[in-house]
Amino acid sequence: MAFPLAPGSTIGIVGGGQLGRMLALAAARLGFRVAVLAREADSPAGQVSAVEIVGGYADGEAVARLAALSDVLTFEFENVAAEALEAVVARGVPIAPPGRALAISQDRVDEKIFLNAHGLATTTFVAIDSAADIGPALAQLGAPALLKTRREGYDGKGQVWVKQADEAEAAFAAIGAKPAILEAKAAFVRELSVIAARGWNGEVAAYPLGENRHEHGVLRTTIAPAEVEDGVQAEALRIATTLLDALDYVGVIGVELFQLADGALLVNEFAPRVHNTGHWTLDGCEVDQFEQHIRAVAGWPLGPTDALARVEMTNLLGEEALDWPALAADPDARLWLYGKREAAPGRKMGHVNRLSMLEMPE
Amino acid sequence: MAFPLAPGSTIGIVGGGQLGRMLALAAARLGFRVAVLAREADSPAGQVSAVEIVGGYADGEAVARLAALSDVLTFEFENVAAEALEAVVARGVPIAPPGRALAISQDRVDEKIFLNAHGLATTTFVAIDSAADIGPALAQLGAPALLKTRREGYDGKGQVWVKQADEAEAAFAAIGAKPAILEAKAAFVRELSVIAARGWNGEVAAYPLGENRHEHGVLRTTIAPAEVEDGVQAEALRIATTLLDALDYVGVIGVELFQLADGALLVNEFAPRVHNTGHWTLDGCEVDQFEQHIRAVAGWPLGPTDALARVEMTNLLGEEALDWPALAADPDARLWLYGKREAAPGRKMGHVNRLSMLEMPE
Repeated sequence: MAFPLAPGSTIGIVGGGQLGRMLALAAARLGFRVAVLAREADSPAGQVSAVEIVGGYADGEAVARLAALSDVLTFEFENVAAEALEAVVARGVPIAPPGRALAISQDRVDEKIFLNAHGLATTTFVAIDSAADIGPALAQLGAPALLKTRREGYDGKGQVWVKQADEAEAAFAAIGAKPAILEAKAAFVRELSVIAARGWNGEVAAYPLGENRHEHGVLRTTIAPAEVEDGVQAEALRIATTLLDALDYVGVIGVELFQLADGALLVNEFAPRVHNTGHWTLDGCEVDQFEQHIRAVAGWPLGPTDALARVEMTNLLGEEALDWPALAADPDARLWLYGKREAAPGRKMGHVNRLSMLEMPE
Repeated sequence: MAFPLAPGSTIGIVGGGQLGRMLALAAARLGFRVAVLAREADSPAGQVSAVEIVGGYADGEAVARLAALSDVLTFEFENVAAEALEAVVARGVPIAPPGRALAISQDRVDEKIFLNAHGLATTTFVAIDSAADIGPALAQLGAPALLKTRREGYDGKGQVWVKQADEAEAAFAAIGAKPAILEAKAAFVRELSVIAARGWNGEVAAYPLGENRHEHGVLRTTIAPAEVEDGVQAEALRIATTLLDALDYVGVIGVELFQLADGALLVNEFAPRVHNTGHWTLDGCEVDQFEQHIRAVAGWPLGPTDALARVEMTNLLGEEALDWPALAADPDARLWLYGKREAAPGRKMGHVNRLSMLEMPE
């Protein structure tokens, strides 16, 4: 490995969506070439990359073709089959973040076990293999509890609340009768997230916390820097650093947190990639999360993470992106659109960052 | 014409260099697709565009192929043969900026005549068709005077100072014995530039003035906003608006100015495109000159042009770009690299923006 990678090196990105697109734009700023693996041609990321390979993310041959072009391989999408990465590892192409971080994050039970094993608190949970497991688990965790598939599922898909033991059969069927996790309801007062990065040399940097609001399981807004009590930012940095070190991680990670009434933080889940709740950094920081990820995986020094403004990031879902004429005319709205043709309901089509002055510390 | 162009429309860019690259990145942010015409494959702009056509900028067939893919055609390079644009005009694809602006800017004599005809002062000049014209012109303008080819030539190439009439033959030979212009030496105290934009609806917006320092005819640094006397920014806006309106211009223009000892501004030349002296806007403004150009040519409202910081932009020429490890490690240096493989001496390989706090107006 010849880190730091020189400008002109090629960064391979598995995933052709908006996160890959914004990673490719950041890589271009730093003089890198980008190759992407996308499920369909003319993908959001492929439109702005030197090379677009079309193939499935579990297609070992396609992943190997991407790796053959790449000086380092990274991901905008965590559900890449571990087997597909074996050929890459065999070829000696460095992978960041490490496959182990992807594997752990792909399974909600493994993820929570890993977090707890490293002293990071989560809500309590029970692994569920059949409908019959749900009644005893509900008695242990208290009702209501949240039943989720162990694997896949995102943006609120593949999950259902269970209020009573007699709902077990229906709930298990509703999530597709797959291996699952039952999670105790967390008594949180708000959802926060920390976007952090770790380099090949172990250097860690974290952005100020964002406060997130979801609707129907999909992120609606992030406000950053979140107004938090003394010590909360430091605790978030401790959590992120512990997790990044435990995973021997390289790249940007998104860690979703629940804040309890007493101020304590639980880890909800982590995403081993750039994260929707970090899009505020695109207009709020000198080095945004996408450039930070490219810097990390390329072995460059991490950039500064200070907020230069207070940002309210709002996702544009489905036909909301049709408001682009009004948003383009609004001098306070910094617009990002993802190059997607079909505005399916709820689909993330773009986002808007609205900036305001930071309040100076007293 | 269906302006404003909807996201997903394709913007065609003639020119595959760093200006095209940064235009393509800005277009991607707003959800546009980009097709470029580049002289060589895997060009700086082509690396970040959905389509790269390889061909010459005077190749009418290649320009027509680009136009066939494009909802609007624009340029990062002004020396496009007018004939090559005729097929585009015939096809009905809108062109911005207009071909007439390119044609005028391609000829230094036509450019100054046009400027003077619209009340915009330049240094005095005489058209030169042969070495025999130089002696009388030098007597009229005073020595020394600057002999330049009428067409082409950039970054100080194709020009030579003439001190005495007996140097006429050698000077004319030195610039290739081509149609030329002899320009009186302007008694300027500094070089400024104004980056401005005009929309299809005639709306005009200008950024704060930059102060430029050249070395060996090549831009070395721009500092912006320049510290200027009362009324100078307003005068620059008046000059830009007069020029843009006279050209019925659409897009971003770069206007190079000489400031005289008494504060007055002369126009040195204009470039009908985004401009190296506007690169500071990439990190100093919410909407940079590249996004502004895309907004203008796509018929979108122009964005705000206020400076959010004071920026010192420094070009990285040739092997200076080899300093990237130190620049990457400097938290105050915002680095841009252009994806060029060969660091030929003096070649623009990238630039660095260094930000500092703006002094607040009293």
